[in-house]
Amino acid sequence: MNEASHSNVMKSEDTPELRQLYADFEAGHLMPLWTQIDDIMPVVPKPKAVPHVWKWSHLFPLAERSGALVPVGRGGERRAIGLANPGLGGKAYITPTLWAAIQYLGPRETAPEHRHAQNAFRFVVEGEGVWTVVNGDPVRMSRGDLLLTPGWHFHGHHNDTDHPMAWIDGLDIPFSYQNDVGFFEFGADRVTDYATPRFSRGERLWAHPGLRPLSELKDTVSSPLAAYRWENTDKALTEQLLLENEGQPATVEQGHAAIRYVNPTTGGDVMPTIRCEFHRLRVGTITPPRREVGSSVFQVFEGAGTVVLNNIESKLNKGDLFVVPSWVAWSLNAETQFDLFRFSDAPIMERLGFARTQVEGVGR
Amino acid sequence: MNEASHSNVMKSEDTPELRQLYADFEAGHLMPLWTQIDDIMPVVPKPKAVPHVWKWSHLFPLAERSGALVPVGRGGERRAIGLANPGLGGKAYITPTLWAAIQYLGPRETAPEHRHAQNAFRFVVEGEGVWTVVNGDPVRMSRGDLLLTPGWHFHGHHNDTDHPMAWIDGLDIPFSYQNDVGFFEFGADRVTDYATPRFSRGERLWAHPGLRPLSELKDTVSSPLAAYRWENTDKALTEQLLLENEGQPATVEQGHAAIRYVNPTTGGDVMPTIRCEFHRLRVGTITPPRREVGSSVFQVFEGAGTVVLNNIESKLNKGDLFVVPSWVAWSLNAETQFDLFRFSDAPIMERLGFARTQVEGVGR
Amino acid sequence: MNEASHSNVMKSEDTPELRQLYADFEAGHLMPLWTQIDDIMPVVPKPKAVPHVWKWSHLFPLAERSGALVPVGRGGERRAIGLANPGLGGKAYITPTLWAAIQYLGPRETAPEHRHAQNAFRFVVEGEGVWTVVNGDPVRMSRGDLLLTPGWHFHGHHNDTDHPMAWIDGLDIPFSYQNDVGFFEFGADRVTDYATPRFSRGERLWAHPGLRPLSELKDTVSSPLAAYRWENTDKALTEQLLLENEGQPATVEQGHAAIRYVNPTTGGDVMPTIRCEFHRLRVGTITPPRREVGSSVFQVFEGAGTVVLNNIESKLNKGDLFVVPSWVAWSLNAETQFDLFRFSDAPIMERLGFARTQVEGVGR
Amino acid sequence: MNEASHSNVMKSEDTPELRQLYADFEAGHLMPLWTQIDDIMPVVPKPKAVPHVWKWSHLFPLAERSGALVPVGRGGERRAIGLANPGLGGKAYITPTLWAAIQYLGPRETAPEHRHAQNAFRFVVEGEGVWTVVNGDPVRMSRGDLLLTPGWHFHGHHNDTDHPMAWIDGLDIPFSYQNDVGFFEFGADRVTDYATPRFSRGERLWAHPGLRPLSELKDTVSSPLAAYRWENTDKALTEQLLLENEGQPATVEQGHAAIRYVNPTTGGDVMPTIRCEFHRLRVGTITPPRREVGSSVFQVFEGAGTVVLNNIESKLNKGDLFVVPSWVAWSLNAETQFDLFRFSDAPIMERLGFARTQVEGVGR
Repeated sequence: MNEASHSNVMKSEDTPELRQLYADFEAGHLMPLWTQIDDIMPVVPKPKAVPHVWKWSHLFPLAERSGALVPVGRGGERRAIGLANPGLGGKAYITPTLWAAIQYLGPRETAPEHRHAQNAFRFVVEGEGVWTVVNGDPVRMSRGDLLLTPGWHFHGHHNDTDHPMAWIDGLDIPFSYQNDVGFFEFGADRVTDYATPRFSRGERLWAHPGLRPLSELKDTVSSPLAAYRWENTDKALTEQLLLENEGQPATVEQGHAAIRYVNPTTGGDVMPTIRCEFHRLRVGTITPPRREVGSSVFQVFEGAGTVVLNNIESKLNKGDLFVVPSWVAWSLNAETQFDLFRFSDAPIMERLGFARTQVEGVGR
Repeated sequence: MNEASHSNVMKSEDTPELRQLYADFEAGHLMPLWTQIDDIMPVVPKPKAVPHVWKWSHLFPLAERSGALVPVGRGGERRAIGLANPGLGGKAYITPTLWAAIQYLGPRETAPEHRHAQNAFRFVVEGEGVWTVVNGDPVRMSRGDLLLTPGWHFHGHHNDTDHPMAWIDGLDIPFSYQNDVGFFEFGADRVTDYATPRFSRGERLWAHPGLRPLSELKDTVSSPLAAYRWENTDKALTEQLLLENEGQPATVEQGHAAIRYVNPTTGGDVMPTIRCEFHRLRVGTITPPRREVGSSVFQVFEGAGTVVLNNIESKLNKGDLFVVPSWVAWSLNAETQFDLFRFSDAPIMERLGFARTQVEGVGR
Repeated sequence: MNEASHSNVMKSEDTPELRQLYADFEAGHLMPLWTQIDDIMPVVPKPKAVPHVWKWSHLFPLAERSGALVPVGRGGERRAIGLANPGLGGKAYITPTLWAAIQYLGPRETAPEHRHAQNAFRFVVEGEGVWTVVNGDPVRMSRGDLLLTPGWHFHGHHNDTDHPMAWIDGLDIPFSYQNDVGFFEFGADRVTDYATPRFSRGERLWAHPGLRPLSELKDTVSSPLAAYRWENTDKALTEQLLLENEGQPATVEQGHAAIRYVNPTTGGDVMPTIRCEFHRLRVGTITPPRREVGSSVFQVFEGAGTVVLNNIESKLNKGDLFVVPSWVAWSLNAETQFDLFRFSDAPIMERLGFARTQVEGVGR
Repeated sequence: MNEASHSNVMKSEDTPELRQLYADFEAGHLMPLWTQIDDIMPVVPKPKAVPHVWKWSHLFPLAERSGALVPVGRGGERRAIGLANPGLGGKAYITPTLWAAIQYLGPRETAPEHRHAQNAFRFVVEGEGVWTVVNGDPVRMSRGDLLLTPGWHFHGHHNDTDHPMAWIDGLDIPFSYQNDVGFFEFGADRVTDYATPRFSRGERLWAHPGLRPLSELKDTVSSPLAAYRWENTDKALTEQLLLENEGQPATVEQGHAAIRYVNPTTGGDVMPTIRCEFHRLRVGTITPPRREVGSSVFQVFEGAGTVVLNNIESKLNKGDLFVVPSWVAWSLNAETQFDLFRFSDAPIMERLGFARTQVEGVGR
């Protein structure tokens, strides 16, 4: 790409006439392109969001203190603490498109039901005992599970135990807010069903590999599978590494197993704006630096390692989260077997034709 | 539909001029529409294929006798005995589009490898001990399993035991033959891998509900899942009936659970020409008569009951097969819990815009 | 492809037991695969249909004689004379999937309205003066026009002049008949609208390049554009050859311009079973031999040349039709500028995953 | 929708512990959801962007003054003046997703070539004489034409006359900037082809209704048709109103004709992020108030009327532009026959599952 700097022939001499013209622009709610093109049309993405790591050892105690000081209930709706990207000027946005938060629910607490156009999921890095009730279907939340709350589905949570529980929430709040697409509606103040079944009705209908209920032949925008259980994720990754041992194609690259969570009605992403994946690296694996259009958040699920973001290396342990803004190179280094959950706005980029990937200097 | 009979104003008087015209047509490889339109453009489908039932108790002994008399090997390729619809004039076609056969493999026998444009599957009503090797991947065949061999995949079978085994094959041979789309190629005389793993590599990569390997993001025309195991099918049907007990929507209609086998990359049919389903009826369930454009074959997997085809009732037991030609009304009656495998040419009808269904006199 | 002939190890010795087995197969409506596999699963498609040329100079006079001897009307419905492939045993099928006929309508005659599941089109090699009324919309038929009658659209024709007119019809009658998908319903005995507008309502809504009515945003299975006018086809082809002159990419290959008629709601084929195209060769152009899975019919619209089909060359003039069965190599040689209309079953092959093409020995 | 206001049980008493917690949140780059949910998750979209009208009579003279004072050339790239929504805090964004500008090119001037990931179009409300060169293809710009420059296509403009010309540009700059998807590359300082053909090569290949070049069978993300000519747009709208006169379905609603510009390879929007339409109202037509998720910009092409936006009515004349932010009700009133060009971010909303429309109090 030709990034040569050109002298800007359009930077005119400062004259009274020009000053008057610019004043008249401003009065008329107008702005010239030529004075700002370098900023708003950069040669490559120049995100305001910056790479950043949040330590679980720091997050969890803050969530606990919130549990002690802030009741959960109607109005505030959730005891969720958003991760605010240091580059995004004090908004609770982890990237321009994504929201990530730690949510905390104390013993026997209920977070009331509501629904919104925003798409949401929860991922559980530790604990169990909470059920999320999605359109009336109680869904168990346990370590390693991915739980979906697609746009405009009613949902509330309740803790059925005497111990607290925390997890992460991912939503497209920033994208929805920025583009004015959000709707919100309150539901029941309590959840509509306090049953605590091992498997949700959505799973009982849909979590059978390659089988589709004949009563459900219409494709859905978001996945009808409310829960993706850790047992399945773990098994899929284990098999990929075993197949690699046997010399069979299975992994993304040597030592790097990964799955994408998908909508079984289409084979595509679980929700129209959010992609969810799980990655497992063998001890010693270093992934080649990758740049991608669009932003991602990773959470360490198990193991230890480091990530290099824009040439700065950070140590990672269980529960730690980090953000990769658009076109920032990232590379993982596994000091143990290293398990990471990832979510991103890649479906937005792909559906709108903006996706590009660059691996280790290989062309776009 | 207006089925009123009109006098055919085009049935002209028999004159020498007309006779000469018709003779000239014939000499010029021409035929008038007006003399044959009633036959070739019927008011509703008038299949030459007829409903028919084949009894497993009759089929299996014949397969055994073949095993004793006919060696399996190169040239004939398979010890498969096709079900020949009595209406189709002595061709081994169960319908104009579908082929169904019982295949039999004796102890330690191998059916050599080959590949063809025709799409194929196997369904196992009883037994175990054979592996089918699909593009080099050994796939175990056990009771209740559906095994795929999509078009142009190399495949052979071998019996790893000291007892014989039989199963049914389904293919689109008649469709392929009629439309001149078939290609065929011999492969190895022995199967390329005699390993007998519990799970094929395809399953190890793909049989995880809602999870897709990141190394396999390109959708495939046919399912990459070589085997659909009975355990999963049974569980999915069991859950549907339990959900129905709980008052939840899950079944096709009261007492009638059913799944479609699908391609996990798309959520659509397993192969472009063949649909596979499994149906379970509670004891006492009678399904309303249905007519569908396109043809189907059912095999009883377990239980007993009857089928009414064009108002004629037939008794059905384990292993029995019956064929439903296009637009023939069918209705099942379950005398016990009644499990049936079904395959059909429905993907052809849907992809080409010909699908219609009529349930119990309800409009098309 | 390995076409090596193997000795068939399954051709067993003739014994009384084997004879009895085969007799029992027959009695039980069964047929072994091993005795017939060479026939029904050929190494490459071996169509029964043969290449054949019908001369317009022969067809048209026969159509005229029909006009004199056979009235048009209810029952026979159309004065259409089907081209019967010499290889297809006396059926009026030009290929296993396609029907082609010359239809003739005398001065002031009306062909009554009906509808059927079969998809139909008309192409006009000469003349004008007939309107086809499709779902109540009168559509002018003039030289070079392609007119559509997609499945289940009511249609009738009337000749508004004092001279006769003939054209060709293309339908998927053989495919529909073979696969039992046909429905048929009589409509009005006269056409529902005798108006003779220059442009149909479908054209007035849809025949504006790149523009879609906001009132019609739902995609349709078949094209909503009832008529594709010669002026547009001619212009598109003319421009392709001019662009080629200018050194720009535009033609299929040197000297060979071509367009596909498409459904403007999708950009895909005009109907789900039939593809329509128009080809123009510069004088002197010889196309490389091509084999394709699926069958085609060409009609010469203008000019003179030859076609080589399976190494046999035939002379072609205006109005002549020829058929290319599946996997038969074809090559055109243009003695003048050479214009040909083509239709085929390619959408069937593509939608069902059977399409293959081989150009001049280049791999599939 | 339940918009009842609830007391926020999560607004805790102000204590030192709570203050410390909030301070620790801030230090750790964290923000609670419960204090900001009303703002970031509104009940219905509450855009910061406001409805606004820009008068052509004001815009054009400012563009002329720019022409006199600011040279066009490398660096600033274009003499384009962006319309800055008064609600968007001084950015040159007409909505959160869309950029709209008036661009001005003096006699014999050239705007140099470049390309960018952002999608762009131009619409010409008056004048002629400029050619835009898109990937080397010179495209004439005349009154009423829509010209496309899809993402990553090189393009430059040159004025072939002795009079200046102005038009509007539409792009997805705000969306691209906000989501960090932009790439930019300089091209030639002069346009690569100064030819001034009446029709571009893209039109010569593609602007034939329902016809697709056989050399271009691969669907493209954006339309390959570089220019949509006024003659076609005008004719399509004229026909819709004539059909309405004849009692035929053709218009969106009584007196309101409209077309969408589409990609002929798919029948869908011209570019993945921008929808373009043209609307024509009969004199006296008043459209029912509509709310839509997503934002739009209209420009009056001909005629006079008013628009009501959030209950405020504004007078509109030729060239005037107005913006409709997300979920703002709009209604047009035609004092003469009233022609308006419209562009919007609707493809983003539809592809991501956020689209909703409400017409005159009818449910979403």
